[in-house]
Amino acid sequence: MRIIRNKLGMDLPIRTEKNFPAKGIEFIDLVPLTLDKNVFKAIIDNFIKKIKDKKYEIDYILGPEARGFLFGTAVARELGVGFIPVRKKGKLPPSTVEAEFTYNKEYGLDRLALPKLMNEEYKGKKIYIIDDIYATGNTIKAIKKQIKELGGEVVGTGVIINIVELNQDRDMYSILDVNEE
Amino acid sequence: MRIIRNKLGMDLPIRTEKNFPAKGIEFIDLVPLTLDKNVFKAIIDNFIKKIKDKKYEIDYILGPEARGFLFGTAVARELGVGFIPVRKKGKLPPSTVEAEFTYNKEYGLDRLALPKLMNEEYKGKKIYIIDDIYATGNTIKAIKKQIKELGGEVVGTGVIINIVELNQDRDMYSILDVNEE
Repeated sequence: MRIIRNKLGMDLPIRTEKNFPAKGIEFIDLVPLTLDKNVFKAIIDNFIKKIKDKKYEIDYILGPEARGFLFGTAVARELGVGFIPVRKKGKLPPSTVEAEFTYNKEYGLDRLALPKLMNEEYKGKKIYIIDDIYATGNTIKAIKKQIKELGGEVVGTGVIINIVELNQDRDMYSILDVNEE
Repeated sequence: MRIIRNKLGMDLPIRTEKNFPAKGIEFIDLVPLTLDKNVFKAIIDNFIKKIKDKKYEIDYILGPEARGFLFGTAVARELGVGFIPVRKKGKLPPSTVEAEFTYNKEYGLDRLALPKLMNEEYKGKKIYIIDDIYATGNTIKAIKKQIKELGGEVVGTGVIINIVELNQDRDMYSILDVNEE
């Protein structure tokens, strides 16, 4: 992994591991980003500034299980909006699931569940997605498609790390741009 | 589920589902607590007030995957401390794992991994655990035991829901006390 661009103004403590969880994959461990109080604060502040600068009107921050939860909830609280946790299949009772959808991950198929909102529909809701890493982008693309089908709108996406050669879709904000060399 | 005590001063929107994920279990769905911006804010504020009132000195907030991530990270940010995500086995590269431990959940065995800290040891660290539900308490007890073995100290535990008849261990703070009738 080589860092191309860092918008944070401080070095990020990231651990990488080759051939995990499968041969040929370099795993990027973001645990140190929450362990370090200054880095964690800087990341959340950075997302908030970006969202405020862009003047997005947002009803909800959305984050996919599990690492999307680590950064999205703090942003939601700070902005004073709700947080939608997108869960892995089987974690939520069927009666509380709005939609299930399948997508291809970098290593294997996955199935996610979008929870029902309380006393309202997704239709017309403005949603900002926060996740940790944008690799193939398939998770986020699948979520966007699902929200659109329900009549909602994903107004933006923010990730900590964008692996640039894995995708050409630049319709998102990233704190760190890296390539895999 | 019957609410015995609510320390929040507002009704909590909680969905329950009988016989999920297994027969005889009543699942408590806490997704609505993050969906509702006012409730989510009130929960985080409540944890922070409790921790400040008790004058705990804390180095880290710790939360178990995945629902512990939803509430713990926002508390950590607000307190200006780091967050330790305890992950399910297999999610972290072995080189980044400090310790793995097994425990009995209400429905089945589980295995968790405590991540290595960056450039420091668990020894002497003061840690406050935040999780969603205290049922058997086995997750939290196993984490406490592991931290203690490493020379660290769990100074307190906060959960949103305490299911009172499942445990007699009252060494934790809960926002909502319920029983299962």
